[in-house]
Amino acid sequence: MTDATKDDLMEATYRALCKHGYAELTMQDIAAESTKSKGTLHYHFDGKRDLLESFLEYLLTQFEERTETVPGGTPAERLHEFLEELLTPSDEDSAEEFRMAMLEIKAQAPYNEAYREQLDEFDRALHDRIAELVADGIEAGQLREGVDPDEIADFLVTVFHGAQTRAVAVDRSPARTKEFFHEYIDETLRVDGERDGAPSSTGEMDGSEADR
Amino acid sequence: MTDATKDDLMEATYRALCKHGYAELTMQDIAAESTKSKGTLHYHFDGKRDLLESFLEYLLTQFEERTETVPGGTPAERLHEFLEELLTPSDEDSAEEFRMAMLEIKAQAPYNEAYREQLDEFDRALHDRIAELVADGIEAGQLREGVDPDEIADFLVTVFHGAQTRAVAVDRSPARTKEFFHEYIDETLRVDGERDGAPSSTGEMDGSEADR
Repeated sequence: MTDATKDDLMEATYRALCKHGYAELTMQDIAAESTKSKGTLHYHFDGKRDLLESFLEYLLTQFEERTETVPGGTPAERLHEFLEELLTPSDEDSAEEFRMAMLEIKAQAPYNEAYREQLDEFDRALHDRIAELVADGIEAGQLREGVDPDEIADFLVTVFHGAQTRAVAVDRSPARTKEFFHEYIDETLRVDGERDGAPSSTGEMDGSEADR
Repeated sequence: MTDATKDDLMEATYRALCKHGYAELTMQDIAAESTKSKGTLHYHFDGKRDLLESFLEYLLTQFEERTETVPGGTPAERLHEFLEELLTPSDEDSAEEFRMAMLEIKAQAPYNEAYREQLDEFDRALHDRIAELVADGIEAGQLREGVDPDEIADFLVTVFHGAQTRAVAVDRSPARTKEFFHEYIDETLRVDGERDGAPSSTGEMDGSEADR
């Protein structure tokens, strides 16, 4: 399969998932969104699950490319940017539909080893990336020496999943979680954090936000 | 429907969900787990969705009863207990299966108004309960004055959903999130929190744990 064909099919899968959700999705729906025929899809993929497995792999690659170089002059700034990016959809118009489809896929993971593996990889990639940025921040003297990059990363990945799940299950905007991420860096992780006497890591935004 | 019949059907629904998952669940599966006939189920409920809606309502009532009085001599102790309880399944043997079924139901919420409403109520009940315990803690002088009970509660409910989702999607134990909850209370919320120079709210457990 050429790169162009792959991109075409993966983008068609994205659109079809947003339009139909995961449970109802058919190979025909995906073909309808692509420039290829249903026959071509079946030539390249064993079926919907096989195609979706490739799609999850593709998502991770896309995410890694998109976040390979995070803007920011310091590690703390890059951590802010990375976490902001994490909850910023690549396409705002289809964000809600895509989150819905992704939660369906996460719910399928226990029944589908290939999905589980892809989700594991994504989870690990997120974790490792955050841990690396936190470790850089400690080394640069911006973040507290006492914090454990692995623990922080594990915790922030959990918060990320929580924000996505609540957006789908109870229609709560992930915007508040973005705020939390920024406050957490500024107030809990930074050596010059303002926690003493200031609001906790989930308190209201304060002046430190403006300095970013 | 008598209370006994209701309890029988709701417990049967719990067992059937754990056994078959949500997507594949049929009224017949639920009848098979109960002492009632499929006819009785259809007499009381319009179908699987109607029954599941009652089941979600039942879960909330059960949870509220179970946590109505939280043990603990102080508000901070009760907050510890409540958050511990939140991630402690009522039946350890079926915990994983039940979490799987609940994630399927959360993923269905955008397609099913009745589920969405029940999940909203659960979310709000959790939020309000936590906010109340935090407010009590502030009033008792145990928790920092600067923290906002609503913000803290919103944040902790997000973390709760994240722990449940990751347990299903990537097989990560919620035990680490329990630890986080306890550390968060002791190190971030408490007026005598040990954050300065100590590990962050997601750092390793320290002596404060032993005092609870």
